[in-house]
Parts: sequence; structure tokens; C-alpha cells
Amino acid sequence: MASTAVQPRALSSTVLLGLAPVASWFIVRPFLDPVPSLPGLFISIGFSLFAFMATLYLVPALGPTFIKAHLSGRDLLKVYATPIPESLGLVCASVYILALTLFIPFAFSDSLTARSTQTPEGISVPEFPHSRLSLYLSSLLSLLMATILGFLDDVFDIRWRHKLPIPIIASIPLLMVYFAERGNTHIVVPLPLRFLLGSLLNLGPLYYLYMSLLSTFATNSINILAGINGSEVSQALIIAISVILNDLLYLPWPIGFHLPVHLLGSKAEVEFGGVWSAGMAYGSKELVERHLFSLYFMLPLVAVCSGFMYHNWYPARAFPGDTLCYVTGMAFAVVGIQGHFSKTLLLFFLPQIFNFVLSCPQLFGLVPCPRHRVPRFDAGTNLLHPSKAMFMRPPSKLAATVLRIFSVFGLVELTLHPSGVILETTNLTILNFFLVRLGPMNEKRLVQVLICSQICGSVLAFSVRYGLAGLVYDGDRR
Amino acid sequence: MASTAVQPRALSSTVLLGLAPVASWFIVRPFLDPVPSLPGLFISIGFSLFAFMATLYLVPALGPTFIKAHLSGRDLLKVYATPIPESLGLVCASVYILALTLFIPFAFSDSLTARSTQTPEGISVPEFPHSRLSLYLSSLLSLLMATILGFLDDVFDIRWRHKLPIPIIASIPLLMVYFAERGNTHIVVPLPLRFLLGSLLNLGPLYYLYMSLLSTFATNSINILAGINGSEVSQALIIAISVILNDLLYLPWPIGFHLPVHLLGSKAEVEFGGVWSAGMAYGSKELVERHLFSLYFMLPLVAVCSGFMYHNWYPARAFPGDTLCYVTGMAFAVVGIQGHFSKTLLLFFLPQIFNFVLSCPQLFGLVPCPRHRVPRFDAGTNLLHPSKAMFMRPPSKLAATVLRIFSVFGLVELTLHPSGVILETTNLTILNFFLVRLGPMNEKRLVQVLICSQICGSVLAFSVRYGLAGLVYDGDRR
Repeated sequence: MASTAVQPRALSSTVLLGLAPVASWFIVRPFLDPVPSLPGLFISIGFSLFAFMATLYLVPALGPTFIKAHLSGRDLLKVYATPIPESLGLVCASVYILALTLFIPFAFSDSLTARSTQTPEGISVPEFPHSRLSLYLSSLLSLLMATILGFLDDVFDIRWRHKLPIPIIASIPLLMVYFAERGNTHIVVPLPLRFLLGSLLNLGPLYYLYMSLLSTFATNSINILAGINGSEVSQALIIAISVILNDLLYLPWPIGFHLPVHLLGSKAEVEFGGVWSAGMAYGSKELVERHLFSLYFMLPLVAVCSGFMYHNWYPARAFPGDTLCYVTGMAFAVVGIQGHFSKTLLLFFLPQIFNFVLSCPQLFGLVPCPRHRVPRFDAGTNLLHPSKAMFMRPPSKLAATVLRIFSVFGLVELTLHPSGVILETTNLTILNFFLVRLGPMNEKRLVQVLICSQICGSVLAFSVRYGLAGLVYDGDRR
Repeated sequence: MASTAVQPRALSSTVLLGLAPVASWFIVRPFLDPVPSLPGLFISIGFSLFAFMATLYLVPALGPTFIKAHLSGRDLLKVYATPIPESLGLVCASVYILALTLFIPFAFSDSLTARSTQTPEGISVPEFPHSRLSLYLSSLLSLLMATILGFLDDVFDIRWRHKLPIPIIASIPLLMVYFAERGNTHIVVPLPLRFLLGSLLNLGPLYYLYMSLLSTFATNSINILAGINGSEVSQALIIAISVILNDLLYLPWPIGFHLPVHLLGSKAEVEFGGVWSAGMAYGSKELVERHLFSLYFMLPLVAVCSGFMYHNWYPARAFPGDTLCYVTGMAFAVVGIQGHFSKTLLLFFLPQIFNFVLSCPQLFGLVPCPRHRVPRFDAGTNLLHPSKAMFMRPPSKLAATVLRIFSVFGLVELTLHPSGVILETTNLTILNFFLVRLGPMNEKRLVQVLICSQICGSVLAFSVRYGLAGLVYDGDRR
């Protein structure tokens, strides 16, 4: 049992071989007449399918090499101690970045974009989009830096307090190019504050701070919601799919749709699709291109995450390491910043925000923080129980108050001394919270609960973004 | 003795602290009136000085971390077996790339370049140089990829036959952006061939092949000339300095110089300097900018290499690993390609070309190739002797012929059976060649000989480039 459990998961070569012609068709299609209206998107889908196949194949193939290079660990929540290859997020990141690199000529090649940027009146924009190419390259640089830093983190095992600010380094290329290009540092002020600040506010240097903090948050918030098989990659997958769904609203669909969001309290209906100039983009080519840019980065990300999830699913045959969190987090920051929809993006991070807020007392030293906060594994029943942090000395007044409030809301379970002093608390993570609320369950069920919460978060995010945002922003908010 | 020999080399904090204000002055100077004519160059020098200090400080500081992460090795040519931290080229590469990234706004920021691109008539070019920014970013991407790949090579210890083509992957961003920007694929045909091919030849896809092979050659040729303390970094340092000297010829110096190259057989004199439109650039702003681009990449490279050389000098306290070779090789390929002086660049690789040609019989399996071809260390005398490759079975006819020719030219020393069959040959590297010609010497002397040969190679390169090139190319060759 022990040894078979860590055999690489079987791959169906029929699936792999069957996908290849489909992927090839997507890449070839834009070169055939009639040229589709968004040729780059076709090629991006084709590349993503190839990236999916490559990840699916390479992760088990390279596992032994990683184990040989001391990049392995045992699964803490299993009965067996066989080493599982670690840091295979590096393979995902490499495939992802290679796909994005090979895509460069197709995202901007004028032979393709000249057709796609034609207005309905037939006026084409002949000039090469150098500026967008620079943004694309700076995004790629940041992703590559995130990959290196994540892998260094895996190799050198940097302590988590030291690694919190590391993503800021990876965001430097993004910021530098934004600065060199004299990027826009204005934000739209919400309606209730306009009497005070006007409708546009120039944040100046603060905007750069905001951008670098966004990448830090996106990276670390995924990283601290980790520890069980499939947790990191499933978060990344669902956030990426949410971003893609949001992007699709802005594309020039040949047919029109209406969403009945007035049921959610919005005054205006959400329309998307229709002719080129219709839909959520409201005729803004700029907006369509921002969301195309986002799609180009998200489609291959979904591809490598799906491919990796197959091997990382319970019981995991490969671990992602920090590399995966760094790359996926940076990818989200990149599309949020370059696509100018960072607030919408943050809405897709609701479970991560919840987990982060819940974790704060432990992250900032108010409550003792053990090396691992993953749930406790009971080998006898194969169930996970909430893990606990013990107070070596009585908690400070502030810590006790915070924990009692958490306890009232059912976020933690406290162990009290008869005198009322807190002796132990369940660790402050969303995973332990689930176990406290829903009772002990096995690891597979727990990751399914996590996935459900992420999906519910995204549904809520869409309702807020397209239902309630009209209350604080103008109708034509981008 | 053994333990003291591997103590980190002492750093003079006076030098470090004394350099900081100098570096700061270079960075601040362009913002003061009167603005110098090439403000970016000042900032580049300032950043390079900081990079020098950072490397000098970080290499010994991070050594123990590398040892802890299994990145260490013993020095094969020493009596002691203490582990020496390996792969510290990663530190050089990180500092180098960080310096180049932080430099982005200063290389292209219009507030700076608007002044520097002013023509003597006072016409300034207001448009932001997006296209040059893309080239800069694609170069940075290739360098970053080379860093990752080099470090992966160190961690996973890839066999050398497999790693020969790896630099091609790192050159992909360069090629993709070149392609997306519809880069020029024409070459100027040498005079003697023009009757056949015309004066300009479009290589088309072959040009891309040439570019990727250039990066492969630059990387691997430095990598195979390795094995003794200081060998990799000193090669990189001298090539970089040669490129810088060549770049300086094209800058708009305030005073004019003349080089008496007619003494070397050239008809025209080499003039450089003079007013903006004078010198080797012959009034071409394009040419000045290409060589500025090259300087921006070479100055920090010289800085990190010098800083690292201090710790890598005999007896080495830190090893570069493959990372350094990958990054420096890619940096040379980048400036050669983007600066359009790849033929001149190759001239600076004369010792590497010699070493590569000499190595071919071993690289391509004609002659047995042991795992290490470094010279043999005699612990008794502390001298290095040529190492040998033994023939397990008699060499093929071709191998025997090649070796006998090499032997006639004094490149190898053969051990013959009385019957005349070759039993052994000294390994086919330039280092063993030096030991064959000059007799056994200690490691420090051998690296000094290597440095001398590299300098002589560069002197010869300049003579050929500016003395003899006029015979096969027009006078206004770029």
C-alpha cells in the first residue's frame, strides 16, 4: 500500500495524443481564411492545451530527478513516509513561462493584430503596439523573477518571516516599466467620497506601493493557505477561472447576452456580447485589449494548474513547493495591475482574505505560531482534526480578547483552564476553521470543502462586482 | 592551514564605505545642471559600483547558506577537503539582473533621453523609445532565463551532453521579440563574395539560427574552459572589458583621438571622439545608441565579475558554478545580437575558439573524455601537470591522425606503445596545452597565463577588427 500509493498516477496516452491535433488546430486556425476576429485568442488556447499536456507528462517524468536533488519531503498527513517529490511547481512555472514566451510574436505580430484591431468601420491601426509589448515583457520578467525566488525559497528554505517581502522584488520589473512608460497613477474615487476628493485621485508614488503590495498579498495569501494535498493548486485554478470568466464579459461576442442582475439590486442590467462595440467593454478597444491580455496570461495558467492538479490530488504524488504559489500569485498580480482591475481581482481572493485576517494574530506574534499549522492527522481513523497552538505562558490581554471574539463567532475552539485562562487554541487558519465547524473529516473531503468555499467566494465576488458596485461607482466603471 | 585557507577573504570596510559616496555621485550627477551629454551612462556607472560592492559583500556572507543547501564541493586541486560553497554565480547573476532592472527607467526615461538624444542643431526627439525598451526587456528576460537554467544545472547536475543546447532555450525571448518587432535579418556580404551574393544578403530564418547558436557558443565556450580557480570569471571579465573598450570608440567624446592603425596595414585611420557626429559612429545616432545599450549591460557585468573574482581568486573561497557561465555567456550574446556587432564579439573569444576546436575530438567522442579534464594536481610539489586520457582500445584511424597532427603542432603530448600505437594523450584543453608547452606550474600561475592569453587575444581582435576588416568590408562598415 505504502509503496504503491506514491507511484506516479497513470496517464492515458490516448488523451494526450488526442489533444495534440485539437491544440494544433487552434494554432493553425488563425492563419486560414476567414481569419477569426480574435486570432491571438485561438493561438493562446492552442498553446495552453500543449502546456496542459506538457505539465501532465513532465511532472511524473521529472519527479525522480527532484528526489535525487534533495527536493522531496514526506507527506505529513499520511501513514507512509515515502519521499514525495517537492517543488514541482517549478515544472509548471517553466512550462507556463515557455508558453508565454513562444506566444510573444502571436500576441502582437501586426499581421495578426492588424486584423483584430479593425474597427467596425474597417479602419485598421497599422502601428506596431510597442507599448503593449513592453508591458507583456515586463510581466513575463516579473513572473520569471517570481519563479527564481520561489525556487530559491524551496532550495534554501527561507524562514517565512523573511520571505514575506520577497514578492516585492519580483514586482520590480513591473513597476520599473510602468514608471518608465509614465503609467497612469490615477484612481477613480468611489461616489460617496467624491465631494471630498474629486472624481479622480492621483496616488503618485502610493500607486507603486499599492502595486507591490498587491503582488505580495496575492503570493503570500495563497502560500499561507497550504498544507493539504491540492490546496494551493486548486485555489490558483479557481481564481484563474474566475478571472477568465470576468474577462469573457468584455470580449466582442457575436451574439448578445443579458444577465438579470437587477434581481441582485442593481439598477442597470449587465449586457455583454453583441457587435464589436457592445458588451461590458462599452465600445472601448482599450478595455477589450486589457482583458485579452489577461486571458493570454490566465489560459495557460489554468492549463498548467489543471495538469499539475492531476498529480497533486489526494493522495498527492507530487508537491508544488513555494514556486507554484509565487508564480500563480505573481500572475494574478500582473493581470490585475496591467488589466487595471485589481479591485475586482481582490474580490476573487475572499477565502484568502478571510484566512489572512484570521491568521494575523499568529503571523504577528500575538498568539504562538508553531512551525506547521496544518490540521492534525489521526492515522487510526484517517481523519483530520484541528491542530492546536499551546500557550507556554498565559496569553496577553489583547490576545485573550481577540481569541474570545473569534471563539464567539465559532472561528476557533479554545481549551480553558478551570480558572478561565486560555491554555490552547486551534490554529488560526481557514482549514482548521472548517474542521472546527464541520467536524473531523478526511483530507480529500477537506480540500473539496476548500474548493467549494473558493467557488462560493467567486460567485459572491461577481454579485458584488456587477450587482453592488453600481452603488459606489458610475455605471461606466471600468 | 586547511581550515584557515577557506575562511572568507577579508573585506576592507573602508573601501566599501568609501565607494558608496562615489557611486551615489554618479547616480545623482545627471539630475544636476549642467546635464551631462550621456546621463544614462553616469547612472549606469553608479549602479555598477553599487553592484560591485554588493557582490563583494554578499558572496562571503551567503557562502554558509549555500553549503547548507548542499551547494558545495571540494577543490580538486588542493590538499584540503573542506567544502567550498559552489554556484555563487547565482549571487552575481542576481545582483547583475537587479541592477539592470532598477536601471530601466534611467535608460529610457524621456526626461533623461530627451536631453541625450538632442542633435547638435538642438532638435530633440520627444517620442518615448518603446522599441528600444522592448529590446532591453527581452535581453533581461534572456539573462534571467539563463540564470534559472544555470542554477537548475547546478542543482540537478545535468550531464554536459544534455546541457549543450540549454542556452538555446534562454535565447528564445530574444528571438521572439526580434521576430515580433520584425527585426532586420540582412547581413552585409564581404567584398570578395559580393559578385556572387550582392552587397546585402537576407538570411531569413537562418539569422535566427545564427543568433541562437551565438548564445550557445558564448555560454558553452566559457563553460568548457573551466576547472581552475578564477578561470571562468577572468575570461568573462576580460571579454567584457574588451567589449567596453570597443563601445567607447563609438561614443561622442568631447575631444578627438586618432589611432595610427595604418601601421597595421589599414588604409584608413581610425578616428574616434570629436563632436557628437564624429568618431567611429560616423554621425549615426543609431550606432551610438547600440553601443550605449552594450555599455549598460557590460558595465555592471564587469562590476559583479570583479567583485566575485576577489573571492574566487586562488585559493578560491567560492566557486561560480554553471550559473556564472550561463549568465555571462548570455550577456555577451545579448550585446552582440542587439548591438549588431556579433562578428566583432566573436573576435574577443579567440582563446575560447581555440579551446573549443582543440576539444572537439573529445567532445564528439573521437577521443575518450574523462569526467574531469582539469590538470592533474601533484600535492607534493603543489604543481599542476597535464592530465591524460587513456585509450581503453586502440584509437580509430581518424582519432590517431588528428592526435598526431595536434602533436606535431605541440598541442598535445602522446604516450606511445613501442609499436607506435597511441596509449594516452594529454586532455584536449587550452589549460593542458599551456602545461604541455610551458611545463608544470602552480594553479595561480596557470590562471595568470590564461588571463595573458585572453588579453593577447583581445589585442589581436582589435588589430583584426580595425586593421584588417577594411580589406573585406567597406570603410563605413558598422
